[in-house]
Amino acid sequence: MSSGPTVAVVGAGAVGCYFGGMLARAGVRVTLIGRAPHMEAIAREGLLLDGLRFHERIPIAATTSLEEGLRDAGVILFCVKTVSTESAARELQPFLAPDAAILSFQNGVDNVDRIYSAIGVHAIPVAVYVAAEITAPGRVTHTGRGDLIVGHRAAWPRQPDLEPLASLFESAEIPCKISPSIETELWTKMAMNCAYNAVSALTRARYGRMIQLAPVRTTMERAIAETVAVARAEGVSLSESAMIQAAYQLGEKMSGATSSTAQDIARGRPTEIDSLNGYVARRGAALGIATPVSDTLVALVKLLEESAVSRQSG
Amino acid sequence: MSSGPTVAVVGAGAVGCYFGGMLARAGVRVTLIGRAPHMEAIAREGLLLDGLRFHERIPIAATTSLEEGLRDAGVILFCVKTVSTESAARELQPFLAPDAAILSFQNGVDNVDRIYSAIGVHAIPVAVYVAAEITAPGRVTHTGRGDLIVGHRAAWPRQPDLEPLASLFESAEIPCKISPSIETELWTKMAMNCAYNAVSALTRARYGRMIQLAPVRTTMERAIAETVAVARAEGVSLSESAMIQAAYQLGEKMSGATSSTAQDIARGRPTEIDSLNGYVARRGAALGIATPVSDTLVALVKLLEESAVSRQSG
Repeated sequence: MSSGPTVAVVGAGAVGCYFGGMLARAGVRVTLIGRAPHMEAIAREGLLLDGLRFHERIPIAATTSLEEGLRDAGVILFCVKTVSTESAARELQPFLAPDAAILSFQNGVDNVDRIYSAIGVHAIPVAVYVAAEITAPGRVTHTGRGDLIVGHRAAWPRQPDLEPLASLFESAEIPCKISPSIETELWTKMAMNCAYNAVSALTRARYGRMIQLAPVRTTMERAIAETVAVARAEGVSLSESAMIQAAYQLGEKMSGATSSTAQDIARGRPTEIDSLNGYVARRGAALGIATPVSDTLVALVKLLEESAVSRQSG
Repeated sequence: MSSGPTVAVVGAGAVGCYFGGMLARAGVRVTLIGRAPHMEAIAREGLLLDGLRFHERIPIAATTSLEEGLRDAGVILFCVKTVSTESAARELQPFLAPDAAILSFQNGVDNVDRIYSAIGVHAIPVAVYVAAEITAPGRVTHTGRGDLIVGHRAAWPRQPDLEPLASLFESAEIPCKISPSIETELWTKMAMNCAYNAVSALTRARYGRMIQLAPVRTTMERAIAETVAVARAEGVSLSESAMIQAAYQLGEKMSGATSSTAQDIARGRPTEIDSLNGYVARRGAALGIATPVSDTLVALVKLLEESAVSRQSG
């Protein structure tokens, strides 16, 4: 397996560490690039992956330096928060091999466009489904799913070939589907995020409890309906009822999960709300689509974010 | 002054202790009736009133017994949470003197109707404006306003005379207006509560910070617009723009306040959301008025309440 590409994970938080860890566990050469305390713990003692089916300490390279981490990287899992998409793209550009593939593992539907605007590189969008949390420096707890959908942007060059990439993941027990319509997949995941992320952050509730309360289900269904309406206006046709059904299935399957937005709030970090309900609200306003529930969720998360950041620093 | 009526405060939390304390400080005979730790501290050491203009320890009778506390009470400040309106009314009924006046100091617009349904007594509605918090057993911190508007329900007997009641409050430095249209005053206060309470609880933000964030202002304005629409359908005419202006003035005047809903959440107690945005949502649904922002706020507070209660007990 060491004949395959070297993988670098940029922005190795819970999600990046989970997938990087699974690849490393399968023998793939992986370097994690992320924040100091987490990377230092992993460099010293390996990544402790507290999985659904196993609990293992995985030896894996970890660094805070892009220059060091990107050396020889043929595949880059781009896992940075969406607030930093452009800045992270510009920071990694000097160390990017000409034939390296950047896979955007991020939330939201416009990251690859933003990466292209920033550095002129066609990144590959990935719809990522996983529930994971950093529970201590060097330790990631996996609470649900862990599968990928990749695909080339409709209007972009269909390079590189996605088959070997999908095989690389599949060989590491990471289910990876290749989609002919990645926009639909990204918007589908967006609908899930718009249903769960803000509500989980505002109420500190896990997914399983969220879907048990009738008025919360109504809120989630309305957030999904607004997302579907905006997606349609952007040319991506989604079924509202299918999205709602998918959301409830996801809530049952990941009942113990809290959203990444909830985790950001808990850590006093900026959230990705502008790429989630905030994107729907912004595009809705531009397209003349009313998004009252999205607007409300965004306003509340923005204010909670301010409270959380000031509590951390104050 | 000791020739005036004896005042009992039923449900003496922050609001009841503030007004009871102000009356006692002016020489009125007052008994507070409330929960054990708070009442025991006050019976032992007096009420520590951490005021805007003063900081005083006020000797005042305090008990957990309705029978004891209501003895000789001519005026009852009914300050219980709206979730307990009927049950508290029934509990106090056996100890109620025939000519005692019950003043509902509660949030919401339907408490006096609920009291009448429960015990057949015409209570007097009061629109209460005060920001106060219990900061320790026996200690209440006052952070804003402290004024009242009283009036008889339009369709009810105009008894007792409200002038002596208003004078009683005024003599204790509690501004008290008599309104010929108390329904309008209650709905006006409702609009303020619907703008601030849930948002403050969900974001842990104080009022001053809430009104500085544009999307939050939009949320507040929409919550007010929905409240005004429901009030109109119920026959109470309010001006939306005047309500919005009043809300911003209130936020500036009480910039350090958090809502009672936020305080309930922090203590792991049930909130009054069903009497606030929940009332607007329920009446809106019955009257065919869309209330998407109210619905969303209610759903979120209900779920947060569940999280908060389970955290306290778990």
